Amino acid sequence: MSESVAWIAVDWGTSNLRGWTIDGQGNVLASRSSPKGMGKLAREEFPAALAELLSGVDLTGPTDVLVCGMAGARQGWLEAPYLEAPTDLRGLLKGAVHPDSGSDKLKVSILPGVCQKQGADNVMRGEETQLLGLASTLPGYSGLVCMPGTHSKWALLDGTKIEHFTTAMTGEMFEILSTHSVLRHSLGGDLDTPERAEGFGAGARDGLEHPADLLGQLFRVRASALVSGRQPAWCAGYLSGLLIGTEISANRHQIGNEPVPLIGSHVLCALYGQVLEMAGAAGRPVDATAVVLAGLKAARDAA
Amino acid sequence: MSESVAWIAVDWGTSNLRGWTIDGQGNVLASRSSPKGMGKLAREEFPAALAELLSGVDLTGPTDVLVCGMAGARQGWLEAPYLEAPTDLRGLLKGAVHPDSGSDKLKVSILPGVCQKQGADNVMRGEETQLLGLASTLPGYSGLVCMPGTHSKWALLDGTKIEHFTTAMTGEMFEILSTHSVLRHSLGGDLDTPERAEGFGAGARDGLEHPADLLGQLFRVRASALVSGRQPAWCAGYLSGLLIGTEISANRHQIGNEPVPLIGSHVLCALYGQVLEMAGAAGRPVDATAVVLAGLKAARDAA
Repeated sequence: MSESVAWIAVDWGTSNLRGWTIDGQGNVLASRSSPKGMGKLAREEFPAALAELLSGVDLTGPTDVLVCGMAGARQGWLEAPYLEAPTDLRGLLKGAVHPDSGSDKLKVSILPGVCQKQGADNVMRGEETQLLGLASTLPGYSGLVCMPGTHSKWALLDGTKIEHFTTAMTGEMFEILSTHSVLRHSLGGDLDTPERAEGFGAGARDGLEHPADLLGQLFRVRASALVSGRQPAWCAGYLSGLLIGTEISANRHQIGNEPVPLIGSHVLCALYGQVLEMAGAAGRPVDATAVVLAGLKAARDAA
Repeated sequence: MSESVAWIAVDWGTSNLRGWTIDGQGNVLASRSSPKGMGKLAREEFPAALAELLSGVDLTGPTDVLVCGMAGARQGWLEAPYLEAPTDLRGLLKGAVHPDSGSDKLKVSILPGVCQKQGADNVMRGEETQLLGLASTLPGYSGLVCMPGTHSKWALLDGTKIEHFTTAMTGEMFEILSTHSVLRHSLGGDLDTPERAEGFGAGARDGLEHPADLLGQLFRVRASALVSGRQPAWCAGYLSGLLIGTEISANRHQIGNEPVPLIGSHVLCALYGQVLEMAGAAGRPVDATAVVLAGLKAARDAA
């Protein structure tokens, strides 16, 4: 006899949609994923995308579907107003909104994001759930958390409370510089080459040492190709290292002696870990999927 | 009786082509311009573009055509190898290359750009001629020169000698962030509004104060719109001010008590002048066309 589904966890990002059926003991029964991220859907297409993701899942009755991420953005399924930092993330479910799923069996709650007005304006959507998950995975952890990505988040966490956070546009900057700027002429090659690694190290050093001169250092990608005959793989590594080094340098003053938990893709976490070590600090990669799930579970348990 | 053409000055940039006929006393007889910049031309199209620019110009015999700018780039008409900084810019014509103009009457010389290997790799093409022109306009000037634009140059000049220079990708960064990044959703409005000016001031202050955190400050453009309801004109001003403030902050240590000569468009020079004053320094706008012409003339006279 198969376990029955107690509730459903969903991470609905800009690019992808992932869901997990969970039993009464909190164990994952099955996982599903689809490319129907928020960015590809009109408001009225969300119910069908969710139904498609869950097609064939056997539900005994009305079932809670807990959603985090961009589905709650203004341009998503239904806007979930932000909680304002500093805030205890155990309050996420209280701030949820409830769109009509179009099915009697799916009772959807979309968790809010977190905004910040004190100090400097900022917003996150999805990362708050990972942070709550981290807090339940590392109970009592107090300190900085780094979440590398398109828009990297650096959050100061005290248990389940988010104190303050910043956003660095590092990943998106790499993307648009590689695709649209004059630097694109100098970039190329494979990720896994000694040239790429050497360029990455050189860029990271320059970023760590001269964070205030990013606009100037960037042009070295082009000039190094023209003047010193640097190869495309070296230049691509340099650009990546320069951006990550600059980001880490800007946050260096917040980093204590404990390793900084890193939540992101394996590749990015490895690169951030390397640059943190160059800066005399250390990183501690955390499984990103595990903390999303732990966060959705903790949000549900706290309510 | 009309004055006869003694030589022809040409500024051949990436986007535009401009030419001036000059008499024996160094006076401009007429000016022409065309949108046939280097970026739009294949190698074999340069002679026709020049002939078209000069169509109807009455030449008494073989005439020197002195060209500066991107026509001498690798992807231009004929590559003019770089001089290497530090170097005396009076030597520009000696480093010129001579493509076949396709006409017995047009004896073309393309001036070299300047590269830098000492310290940090860098390159310029076209600005070196403006710098030589500035040196002949302000004889004996010694100090920093700022040339705002797509790729802003900051050069340390000592008379006609260029000692060192850097490049900041400020203008291109504004362009690609406005067009391709998530920030584009928050930008808009007219240049000439109080909101734009207010945003510019706020961004410039943040850039001057936190130059090492550009990757983080940039996201404030988006967050200010979402959290504080900032309008598109304010956000566009903020982005512009933030980038210029960050650039000027990175160069602040090089700026002495004398006003910094600013060579660029009127609009940009006014903005840079404003931010230099916020940084406790001052700018001194210089007519960009006048220094190109003075530079081509000085290069010719020095040979």
